[in-house]
Amino acid sequence: MAAKSQSKWSAAPLLKELRNDPMLWLLALVPVALAAAKLIPAAHVLLFVLSVLAIVPLAALLGRATESVAEKTGDTAGGLLNATLGNLTELVIAAAALRAGEYALVKGSIAGAIVANTLFTLGASFLLGGLKHHVQEFNRATARLHAALLFLATIALVSPSAIAKADLAPGAALTQKLSVALAVLLIVGYGLGLLFSLKTHREIFAGAAHSAEPGEPAWPIGLALVTLAVVTVLVALMSEIFVESVQKAAETFGMSQAFVGFIVVALVGGAAEMAVAFSAARKDRLDLSVGIALGSASQIALFVGPVLVLLSYVLGPTPMDLQFWSGAVVMVFVATLVAAFITGGGRSAWFFGVLLLFVYLIFALTLYMLPPQLE
Amino acid sequence: MAAKSQSKWSAAPLLKELRNDPMLWLLALVPVALAAAKLIPAAHVLLFVLSVLAIVPLAALLGRATESVAEKTGDTAGGLLNATLGNLTELVIAAAALRAGEYALVKGSIAGAIVANTLFTLGASFLLGGLKHHVQEFNRATARLHAALLFLATIALVSPSAIAKADLAPGAALTQKLSVALAVLLIVGYGLGLLFSLKTHREIFAGAAHSAEPGEPAWPIGLALVTLAVVTVLVALMSEIFVESVQKAAETFGMSQAFVGFIVVALVGGAAEMAVAFSAARKDRLDLSVGIALGSASQIALFVGPVLVLLSYVLGPTPMDLQFWSGAVVMVFVATLVAAFITGGGRSAWFFGVLLLFVYLIFALTLYMLPPQLE
Amino acid sequence: MAAKSQSKWSAAPLLKELRNDPMLWLLALVPVALAAAKLIPAAHVLLFVLSVLAIVPLAALLGRATESVAEKTGDTAGGLLNATLGNLTELVIAAAALRAGEYALVKGSIAGAIVANTLFTLGASFLLGGLKHHVQEFNRATARLHAALLFLATIALVSPSAIAKADLAPGAALTQKLSVALAVLLIVGYGLGLLFSLKTHREIFAGAAHSAEPGEPAWPIGLALVTLAVVTVLVALMSEIFVESVQKAAETFGMSQAFVGFIVVALVGGAAEMAVAFSAARKDRLDLSVGIALGSASQIALFVGPVLVLLSYVLGPTPMDLQFWSGAVVMVFVATLVAAFITGGGRSAWFFGVLLLFVYLIFALTLYMLPPQLE
Repeated sequence: MAAKSQSKWSAAPLLKELRNDPMLWLLALVPVALAAAKLIPAAHVLLFVLSVLAIVPLAALLGRATESVAEKTGDTAGGLLNATLGNLTELVIAAAALRAGEYALVKGSIAGAIVANTLFTLGASFLLGGLKHHVQEFNRATARLHAALLFLATIALVSPSAIAKADLAPGAALTQKLSVALAVLLIVGYGLGLLFSLKTHREIFAGAAHSAEPGEPAWPIGLALVTLAVVTVLVALMSEIFVESVQKAAETFGMSQAFVGFIVVALVGGAAEMAVAFSAARKDRLDLSVGIALGSASQIALFVGPVLVLLSYVLGPTPMDLQFWSGAVVMVFVATLVAAFITGGGRSAWFFGVLLLFVYLIFALTLYMLPPQLE
Repeated sequence: MAAKSQSKWSAAPLLKELRNDPMLWLLALVPVALAAAKLIPAAHVLLFVLSVLAIVPLAALLGRATESVAEKTGDTAGGLLNATLGNLTELVIAAAALRAGEYALVKGSIAGAIVANTLFTLGASFLLGGLKHHVQEFNRATARLHAALLFLATIALVSPSAIAKADLAPGAALTQKLSVALAVLLIVGYGLGLLFSLKTHREIFAGAAHSAEPGEPAWPIGLALVTLAVVTVLVALMSEIFVESVQKAAETFGMSQAFVGFIVVALVGGAAEMAVAFSAARKDRLDLSVGIALGSASQIALFVGPVLVLLSYVLGPTPMDLQFWSGAVVMVFVATLVAAFITGGGRSAWFFGVLLLFVYLIFALTLYMLPPQLE
Repeated sequence: MAAKSQSKWSAAPLLKELRNDPMLWLLALVPVALAAAKLIPAAHVLLFVLSVLAIVPLAALLGRATESVAEKTGDTAGGLLNATLGNLTELVIAAAALRAGEYALVKGSIAGAIVANTLFTLGASFLLGGLKHHVQEFNRATARLHAALLFLATIALVSPSAIAKADLAPGAALTQKLSVALAVLLIVGYGLGLLFSLKTHREIFAGAAHSAEPGEPAWPIGLALVTLAVVTVLVALMSEIFVESVQKAAETFGMSQAFVGFIVVALVGGAAEMAVAFSAARKDRLDLSVGIALGSASQIALFVGPVLVLLSYVLGPTPMDLQFWSGAVVMVFVATLVAAFITGGGRSAWFFGVLLLFVYLIFALTLYMLPPQLE
């Protein structure tokens, strides 16, 4: 038992990765950020930069640990775990903003993460893959399923304001009740989607599993669980520093809060996953890239977002509703439509990546130049 | 000639069906409803429930009679008959509302019937079929044609308010003139669509004919014609009771008029056809289910709705225009888009049905919780 | 060298075409229009009609000359030339309106040309081809690429007003800055699209080249270049007469300026190209028709339009922004969506043409009956 326990809890794989992956050296900034937050709490720009840089390697570790646990627990349970904890970083950051009552930031980061995944991660994967390979193929059933789920989420977001011309005062009782109902419906829809893709019709989605790349051995289960717990706490601490400093830092940089929430937070929270997607595309494993990009987007839209609405009853100062500002809904809808159109053929070349990135660029430019009035 | 006439007019098939199909026993409520309307005209809720329940078996008989006539009159003429009389129930109900000047109810029931067919009938068919069969195939050319027709109708609905920022006062002369022009254009478009699918390119749409299920022998032509005439009159009588009682009943149930028109009327008017579509899906005859669901939707959008606009000049107190409240247009557009996307592949599994039903549920929830302000 | 020069500069091919093509006899109206503009400058309706009729044959000559130059300069350079000069007529007309500060007319003609190409040229090609051939096939990769480019342009058009709720006062500094940025981005996107379709992945788009019909020998290069130069000047002169007279003439005819810019100018400017597309469809060369229709549309959206925004800094009295009235954006978006949906299958029959033409008819009817209030 000792030997087994030894291997179960051995930290050797973690140490090996720390040695080999320069990105993980950014972990040194975690204690620096914590100390700075205590000693110089008014240095908002410094705290903002430190917390952003520290979240990147933590997100990478979190992803690695989740995948290792998932691999040990069998196919279906593992898929389920990946599908619920896969965007833990985004969830923890948003929960920190939720506790601070920064609902515009929460909503901005949810919508921003959906758009960043469908346009930036997918587009850059297509471009990077396409620069190396003439034409690449991928399982289009996966893309279709995620696009359909994203459409469902978009419809839930747009429904209250587009169908009922009722003026939806934030926090109004009816809007709130409807938001909870729609949140539950989206979570159930997401659950049924997992049942469909992981259980009853898994053969259709073969090859698109959102898993670690082969060749990298999984960590021992004990190490993975401890890492999961410790790193989640660290991400939460960094997120708190981030949320407190972001508004002031944005002012200093001359960015609107919308731009920060929508573009900066989304890219920071997803950096680790993006790295995996890009590397897979270069290796012509586009199924993995598409699975990560669209899988993350639908997970955030149908699981992370709705869970945050429900969590707001426990964590937030007041309940949060599911009403996004109309610009965010337009961007999520357009991103879904474009991704569905581009992935419809199951084939890719570099220019498809350019198209997706250009749409993202249009959004970023517009947000940067014309800061929208958030509700 | 006597013998032939005998067989032509024999009511035996009708009586046999009355014995075997328990749904038809609800016909007993027709005289009850008529008597109640005379004796207790103020019992709105009772009259509402009686008229709703009486319309269901009448719609089933109407469908059966139409199909029998269609079968006797040859392929093209029969297809034409089915395509024009297939939604006679909806037309008669809406005409009753038209005569009463209840234009919000008329428009609500038109848009509601389109959405109910594209989302509920199609979705439940996919779900019920998918629970029995792993993957089901259907002729996607049919789905594409109907989706294209529905897009045409949506564009006609959205065009006046989206293109011209003119404020469209209801009944304004210009809006009215444009509505008539667009109504004629849609009817011509529908006619050309029939010419295309029934005549010039019928081989593409093989297998998707909207016909009676094989095995059920057609009724004698005489019986079918008499049933058609008598039942149409009965549906008209029930519809009048329904239209008079629905508003008060809705108030009692705490439902908005929008919810009643959009959800309740649509499901009642289409109940008989839905039963046929669901049964076909269980028997893996998905072509029939898709043909009924999308065929009915495009028929209502391009034929029933425009005919009602033209009829309003004869039947209504004032002309009715083709301007729907924007929420209805959004729902019709989204329903068309989702149905086009889901049926694009020509294959189905249970989860596709869930997706369509969830979109319908989102619409129903929103209408129920946030009653829209109708014009 | 004399003989070679002789053949290079020989005007014989031009004279031959002038004899054989009755449409070119309209060229006689060019001097008539010039004289009339000098002698009776107040006869707006006459000047309008003369300039419109004179532009049609000039556009045909311009197209013929461009193609001849393109053919002589090798495949890639020729494709590039075609892709940039292919809509020279539209560019020259719009530049004349730009100089006069008629920005509503410029924008109307840009949006109108996009819609006329995607709906009218494509629809009439499908209809005319389909009346002769039962089912026609075409390279759907071309259609997909152009649809994707058109989506990109639509997103750039809709982005500022839909994402940022900022009130976009015409000429406001921020809107202007964003418009320039988006214009540059679209031109770069168009350039990369050419690189993709003409160079790196040309094999995918084989058969869809936007070239002269085989059998018609190219003109000698000298003749082509001289024609190009002279005809461009003549189009510019006619355009000036046209722009000066159109507003007054529209009032006389009872048309709104929106209808004139959107429908009349677009059909006049594209008449020559349409003739080529229709003739190709009749000869079952649908790849050419689709290439002309969608290629012109994406060229106007991503090249001509943005170039006009940049040109406005040089030519116009004040800078022009990329903000279109919302109705124009809706029409461009709907036209793109419908064209993408209809061409998605790579096959065509007459009814597909009817559908596209009916959508165009709905737009034209709405603009004619309900003149929109332009900004």
